[in-house]
Amino acid sequence: MGVEVGIVMGSDSDWPVMRAAADALAELGVDVEADVVSAHRMPEEMVAYGRAAAGRGLRVVIAGAGGAAHLPGMLAALTPLPVIGVPVPLAHLDGMDSLLSIVQMPAGVPVATVSIGGARNAGLLAARILAAGTSEADLDLRERMVAFQEDLREAAAAKGARVRAECQAP
Amino acid sequence: MGVEVGIVMGSDSDWPVMRAAADALAELGVDVEADVVSAHRMPEEMVAYGRAAAGRGLRVVIAGAGGAAHLPGMLAALTPLPVIGVPVPLAHLDGMDSLLSIVQMPAGVPVATVSIGGARNAGLLAARILAAGTSEADLDLRERMVAFQEDLREAAAAKGARVRAECQAP
Amino acid sequence: MGVEVGIVMGSDSDWPVMRAAADALAELGVDVEADVVSAHRMPEEMVAYGRAAAGRGLRVVIAGAGGAAHLPGMLAALTPLPVIGVPVPLAHLDGMDSLLSIVQMPAGVPVATVSIGGARNAGLLAARILAAGTSEADLDLRERMVAFQEDLREAAAAKGARVRAECQAP
Amino acid sequence: MGVEVGIVMGSDSDWPVMRAAADALAELGVDVEADVVSAHRMPEEMVAYGRAAAGRGLRVVIAGAGGAAHLPGMLAALTPLPVIGVPVPLAHLDGMDSLLSIVQMPAGVPVATVSIGGARNAGLLAARILAAGTSEADLDLRERMVAFQEDLREAAAAKGARVRAECQAP
Amino acid sequence: MGVEVGIVMGSDSDWPVMRAAADALAELGVDVEADVVSAHRMPEEMVAYGRAAAGRGLRVVIAGAGGAAHLPGMLAALTPLPVIGVPVPLAHLDGMDSLLSIVQMPAGVPVATVSIGGARNAGLLAARILAAGTSEADLDLRERMVAFQEDLREAAAAKGARVRAECQAP
Amino acid sequence: MGVEVGIVMGSDSDWPVMRAAADALAELGVDVEADVVSAHRMPEEMVAYGRAAAGRGLRVVIAGAGGAAHLPGMLAALTPLPVIGVPVPLAHLDGMDSLLSIVQMPAGVPVATVSIGGARNAGLLAARILAAGTSEADLDLRERMVAFQEDLREAAAAKGARVRAECQAP
Amino acid sequence: MGVEVGIVMGSDSDWPVMRAAADALAELGVDVEADVVSAHRMPEEMVAYGRAAAGRGLRVVIAGAGGAAHLPGMLAALTPLPVIGVPVPLAHLDGMDSLLSIVQMPAGVPVATVSIGGARNAGLLAARILAAGTSEADLDLRERMVAFQEDLREAAAAKGARVRAECQAP
Amino acid sequence: MGVEVGIVMGSDSDWPVMRAAADALAELGVDVEADVVSAHRMPEEMVAYGRAAAGRGLRVVIAGAGGAAHLPGMLAALTPLPVIGVPVPLAHLDGMDSLLSIVQMPAGVPVATVSIGGARNAGLLAARILAAGTSEADLDLRERMVAFQEDLREAAAAKGARVRAECQAP
Repeated sequence: MGVEVGIVMGSDSDWPVMRAAADALAELGVDVEADVVSAHRMPEEMVAYGRAAAGRGLRVVIAGAGGAAHLPGMLAALTPLPVIGVPVPLAHLDGMDSLLSIVQMPAGVPVATVSIGGARNAGLLAARILAAGTSEADLDLRERMVAFQEDLREAAAAKGARVRAECQAP
Repeated sequence: MGVEVGIVMGSDSDWPVMRAAADALAELGVDVEADVVSAHRMPEEMVAYGRAAAGRGLRVVIAGAGGAAHLPGMLAALTPLPVIGVPVPLAHLDGMDSLLSIVQMPAGVPVATVSIGGARNAGLLAARILAAGTSEADLDLRERMVAFQEDLREAAAAKGARVRAECQAP
Repeated sequence: MGVEVGIVMGSDSDWPVMRAAADALAELGVDVEADVVSAHRMPEEMVAYGRAAAGRGLRVVIAGAGGAAHLPGMLAALTPLPVIGVPVPLAHLDGMDSLLSIVQMPAGVPVATVSIGGARNAGLLAARILAAGTSEADLDLRERMVAFQEDLREAAAAKGARVRAECQAP
Repeated sequence: MGVEVGIVMGSDSDWPVMRAAADALAELGVDVEADVVSAHRMPEEMVAYGRAAAGRGLRVVIAGAGGAAHLPGMLAALTPLPVIGVPVPLAHLDGMDSLLSIVQMPAGVPVATVSIGGARNAGLLAARILAAGTSEADLDLRERMVAFQEDLREAAAAKGARVRAECQAP
Repeated sequence: MGVEVGIVMGSDSDWPVMRAAADALAELGVDVEADVVSAHRMPEEMVAYGRAAAGRGLRVVIAGAGGAAHLPGMLAALTPLPVIGVPVPLAHLDGMDSLLSIVQMPAGVPVATVSIGGARNAGLLAARILAAGTSEADLDLRERMVAFQEDLREAAAAKGARVRAECQAP
Repeated sequence: MGVEVGIVMGSDSDWPVMRAAADALAELGVDVEADVVSAHRMPEEMVAYGRAAAGRGLRVVIAGAGGAAHLPGMLAALTPLPVIGVPVPLAHLDGMDSLLSIVQMPAGVPVATVSIGGARNAGLLAARILAAGTSEADLDLRERMVAFQEDLREAAAAKGARVRAECQAP
Repeated sequence: MGVEVGIVMGSDSDWPVMRAAADALAELGVDVEADVVSAHRMPEEMVAYGRAAAGRGLRVVIAGAGGAAHLPGMLAALTPLPVIGVPVPLAHLDGMDSLLSIVQMPAGVPVATVSIGGARNAGLLAARILAAGTSEADLDLRERMVAFQEDLREAAAAKGARVRAECQAP
Repeated sequence: MGVEVGIVMGSDSDWPVMRAAADALAELGVDVEADVVSAHRMPEEMVAYGRAAAGRGLRVVIAGAGGAAHLPGMLAALTPLPVIGVPVPLAHLDGMDSLLSIVQMPAGVPVATVSIGGARNAGLLAARILAAGTSEADLDLRERMVAFQEDLREAAAAKGARVRAECQAP
């Protein structure tokens, strides 16, 4: 099966944040592609990317952007696929501008927004979306997601030991 | 096929906002169920709802909540399904508290957040997620989503006539 | 001379705000056109509008949008003309989302942003931009702008009489 | 007497902030326990913790959490005990998201919220709550709280000497 | 037993908000007193109120204030009792100023802050604090709090019926 | 003695807010003048007003403005007198823009800022400033300020009766 | 003449910010005293300070505080003197909590608020207030303030040379 | 032709931010001048600068300021030229105060506001404004702006290669 998740961002300076999406999907065995698609610097290419996404087999698009962050919303306007938006924090305003520019979409064109800088969660959300499918591969992925959540639980439980010990320390 | 989208909210007072999600899905031919599941007033029932959701055939959960809005995030912790969160605005702060309580989830547990009061977009996002599946029914839904987007375009284009006319009026 | 200022907005529901831009330009004798161009509902048309704007004689574009307001920034990416952005306030957040989505553009693609709901000032700014040209018509417009500012001064001065009188009233 | 105050947090990364609660209680001679209880990673354990808290002798629960901070409010839904919430600041938004996620609880389920990062005050508030009891042990604790406040006064007064001296220095 | 909860506010204009605290406590069978104690208009009386509170048998103080809301924090400085602060929203800023003025107390002097306008929760929190005592009367109150929470659950569950029915309606 | 307090505002639309400053000063027996002086519509007149204020006997200037509120700060740059700034709330942002535009002055040029819409307090602050003088008239005014504060106390105390009564009502 | 300006703060940790007020007054030849007066740690001493301030010859009080900053407003309630409030920024929220806690005072009790961290401006404002008096000493101070403003102008003008030169540099 | 763009700022401390405007214009072959013009420290010089700007051949003014940022708006009141405002971020509030002080101008006096710290975009906007003229020199500049945008596109496209490669790396 071809690549089913596309990760795009406005500049390679977003990659240190956005690679966490790719890493999360890799952990779950999902292949991804990543690219720079800038709404403001290469708008026609952005339109082409959005219009072609579904036809070439992508099932989810993850888009990260900062400041006046237009890429996720514009892609959502260009594809029927679910688009996940990652608000990338810039030098000022701590990502609040990025968040509002992505999440406050008008009725008709939704963007599935995750937390400020939350690229890892964007990857996990993409996996959940794929795992909402009904094919055998998708059901396998859902089982891996259930196992992933079980691992989270165990890791969190293990952390309690350290806190319990330090609390007792004189 | 059974119901694939569950819409839940903390109180029936959220229904006037949240019904727009049900309406959007109905327009696209997707069956839904709706219920009150309060994180703060019936926590065990919430846990049970979340744990059972995937097993009884739901593929997407939409959760609306306001203020210290914990329902979407808690459900995301309880199910491997994609959970869409709708920040419901309350009497103060214009929904900013609801938005931050829903979108700022920790790494590991994503919520697909839409705009403040954006229940219609939650419904449309749920449809996109179903339509990201590969079954024939899902592909049919994607075609309806493409048609829906085309209708949006035509409606928007039609609105231009009024503005052009009023702009010329003396 | 043809129309030199284009006013666009995402929906006809923005017209009650945006017509103040047209009115201000009409007061100064500048012809305008107005239309609906939605970044999210008709993206290809938006690209076409932006790419064609300079070639068909427009010299300034005014774009109003609300919420995740992408139209001004996208048009600025598509034309070398100065683009003026008007943050239209929606039902929540008092226009703060609109403002940040418009003003916080990345380096390379500026939008000349005015105040929340400040469509009248957008019209006046467009006139100042035209009046920064060096043709005879532009210099005439600058004289009208100077006279407009003188009128503002006189109107403000006249308002003082009322306040002075009411302050003395028992 | 058994431990009467439980301190919980979503991850051991919160411990450097939350230990100030344990320290304050230790200064006042109150035994505490501390543990990791994650609303999002181990929800059933969280439910069990909340449901069991009163029965096993706890009289106050302190819960720290950051971002979409659901732990304090969820515990308040699960126990009749007073729950104190500590908004832990994360990398972005300076703890404003944590604060609103904790304090803006719906009617029926209160959380006693302290300042951003205010774990020391959470410990002191827990001591005040215990000291509002009417047993001899509780009255003793209240006397220690009165003495603690007197110490605060003396320490503050002593600081004045330094400022008075530096102000006079040439 | 004498009155154990004192409710104070800066002006009688706060009473329409603050009476919800008295009502909640009355529902749970807790006697209260209410009074106007203004930090800014009668500071010596405020000091006297705070200093006398514990001695005359109060076990919890609830204080409501708006804007630069100093009453809860000042009372917390004057008594070893737990003080609950209610941020009362005023004409501007939607209570954000009230919230920050109450919750952001310095280390040493905690205020148990509830939501903006959350006087009902202040009453319920006071009841939880009393019910954290170990006397028979306090244990009785805790049972009433458990029953109250059970009532909340049932009321919430009942609301689901309406939503389920409306969702199915054509 | 001539008028010692000048009240200015950018437009007569600010008068309904600003007259509370004049009223407060009248209650305390201080004569005032009020006028429209717009920083943005009549800048030279504003410069003249600021430069002349001290010389013609004014001792305090009160300036109200909204939005990008420049009048108080500009007057502070033009006079050695204390300038009191009143942030007037406009249609959006609830006066937060007005507040920040007035209070965040650079080092060297202070504005004595009062609350959003707080014109009455601006009048009272002007009276306190006059009453900080050492002439007999100023000392008389200080006595009236002390009496005013005593009246505030009595009025606040009287309000307690209503609250105490309503709290007991069944 | 005795000291006419008192500078107070809640802790000696505020002194590095607040000393700029003392320095500014020293530059203008005004004697000051500085002390720690904590609203929350020594409330009776605060009441005593406020009640005694005018009687012992102070004419202006400057109070700095951070977070839930109650000192300036409480002092304003306790004295008829003008009180200047300095919002001291703490570790979180960048001083916004301090600002709102100081500036948003209720009608009747004004605080003359300066910018976040603006202690230097607090000193300059105190000097302007003294210089609004009519004694010979006060008029002398006003002349020094006029000269100070002239120095500001010259220093600013001199800075232009550097910018003009750097702008031309290749 | 003489210099057509003037860049001004309140202090030479703004130059490290503002020089990006000069650099952008230099890249496009536009001559600029830069100077310190402080609204608050040299108001008459500011008035003179604004009143003279158009007459001595400037066609656009760029003004940077921080905090209570009054320079751009005051200059817009003094000239019929388009004025571009750059919100310079200061030590607190991340430039939000600067942004609101610049963008929220009253009807009648627009400022073309760019992003916080966005001096480079201010330079590019000035170039677009000049390039909106109809002289041969202006049309030449527009061609350079079109080429500049094409360069942006190519640079962005080139960045994709790095991201694509890193995404595939094991």
